[in-house]
Amino acid sequence: MKRLVLLRHGQSSWNLENRFTGWQDVDLSDQGREEAYAAGQLLAQHDFRFDWVYTSVQKRAIRTTWITLDALDQMWAPITNDWRLNERHYGALTGLDKAETAQKYGSEQVHVWRRSYATPPPPMSGDDPRHPRFDPRYAGLRPEWLPATESLKDTLERVMPYWKSKIIPRLHDNNTLLISAHGNSLRALIKHLNAISDEAITSLEIPTGEPLIYELEDDLTVVQSYYLREGV
Amino acid sequence: MKRLVLLRHGQSSWNLENRFTGWQDVDLSDQGREEAYAAGQLLAQHDFRFDWVYTSVQKRAIRTTWITLDALDQMWAPITNDWRLNERHYGALTGLDKAETAQKYGSEQVHVWRRSYATPPPPMSGDDPRHPRFDPRYAGLRPEWLPATESLKDTLERVMPYWKSKIIPRLHDNNTLLISAHGNSLRALIKHLNAISDEAITSLEIPTGEPLIYELEDDLTVVQSYYLREGV
Repeated sequence: MKRLVLLRHGQSSWNLENRFTGWQDVDLSDQGREEAYAAGQLLAQHDFRFDWVYTSVQKRAIRTTWITLDALDQMWAPITNDWRLNERHYGALTGLDKAETAQKYGSEQVHVWRRSYATPPPPMSGDDPRHPRFDPRYAGLRPEWLPATESLKDTLERVMPYWKSKIIPRLHDNNTLLISAHGNSLRALIKHLNAISDEAITSLEIPTGEPLIYELEDDLTVVQSYYLREGV
Repeated sequence: MKRLVLLRHGQSSWNLENRFTGWQDVDLSDQGREEAYAAGQLLAQHDFRFDWVYTSVQKRAIRTTWITLDALDQMWAPITNDWRLNERHYGALTGLDKAETAQKYGSEQVHVWRRSYATPPPPMSGDDPRHPRFDPRYAGLRPEWLPATESLKDTLERVMPYWKSKIIPRLHDNNTLLISAHGNSLRALIKHLNAISDEAITSLEIPTGEPLIYELEDDLTVVQSYYLREGV
């Protein structure tokens, strides 16, 4: 029996302010740090030992990973960071709060961008200093790989090749993996693992800091999936 | 011009108590955390950007790495942990303070163990629950690789193959690497890089939390080495 654990990062300071974050490298809030620590304690109570850990190159997911591994007393677990596990890029909406966006584009349009599977928001300008091409962490990547905006479909189309080429082989060689990532990169994986439709996936909410456990056969067929939650 | 940075972890709680630590997985003290943060700030002031980071599987070095990268705003840098960068294994001395050890074995003998290049302390018993064979982080390794005690020479003999097979190729492909490790695993590297004799290396003191910078030619010849230190 193999186990794959998906963990959405704890609350970030922009979650708190209700702003579109996307590729902006926002840190965890204090509550987000507490959520990450609690996730690690819960995983420790259930004797999880991770053979390998995957995360994005964004601070809020990396810090969640570090705090969770610290709480588990498994700081020594190998970690691989990859940009393909990043959050969906929100294009020109990045940094706007929900009210500002509705005022600028109309609330119906905003609803489409948030809830349509394949419609991306307007792109971030190539001259915007926040464009990924100016960020040293992406300096080694081909320019055409770097998004200026993404739909959930676009996000899925960069997550899945990484899942297939890197994570699946690791899961064949090991028993227990953690993927500590973001709402939309995790939606991509959940869509695949649970065979969820394009329509249904956009409204699937993944709680922050609650480990989602997949039990898998040796051939990686999903036996069952469940959230690990603190009892009362 | 390539740059290699060696960083000895900040003060640990057992450094503070003056106990032989070795492979015991002791954490940083508050001062140790501050030292790690200051090292990151200093590296940031000098515009270091790390292409790859190496550390041991011991908490005090990993936490130093994490805090340093956080202070540098480079949490996204790829990190590889490997047991071959661990501290020297202090065998049966592990956990004893300097006074207890002198009382038990005589201070002259203790001096030999601390300062001889090739004489290891008595081994830790194979039944000792602290023996590495009981530690899950070493579960994937061949039993004959796991030390029950080490001289500095033994430490060097596991560090150098890792340096040659893993770090050197990475240094050929990249410009700037950080190795965040321990007094004796770093002594092994410094002995090699600066061609220091067996006799001289045992008394070389490496300060905690002070980045030691090596500037290297493309063929990895050492041009110069110096500590990066806060000015007054």
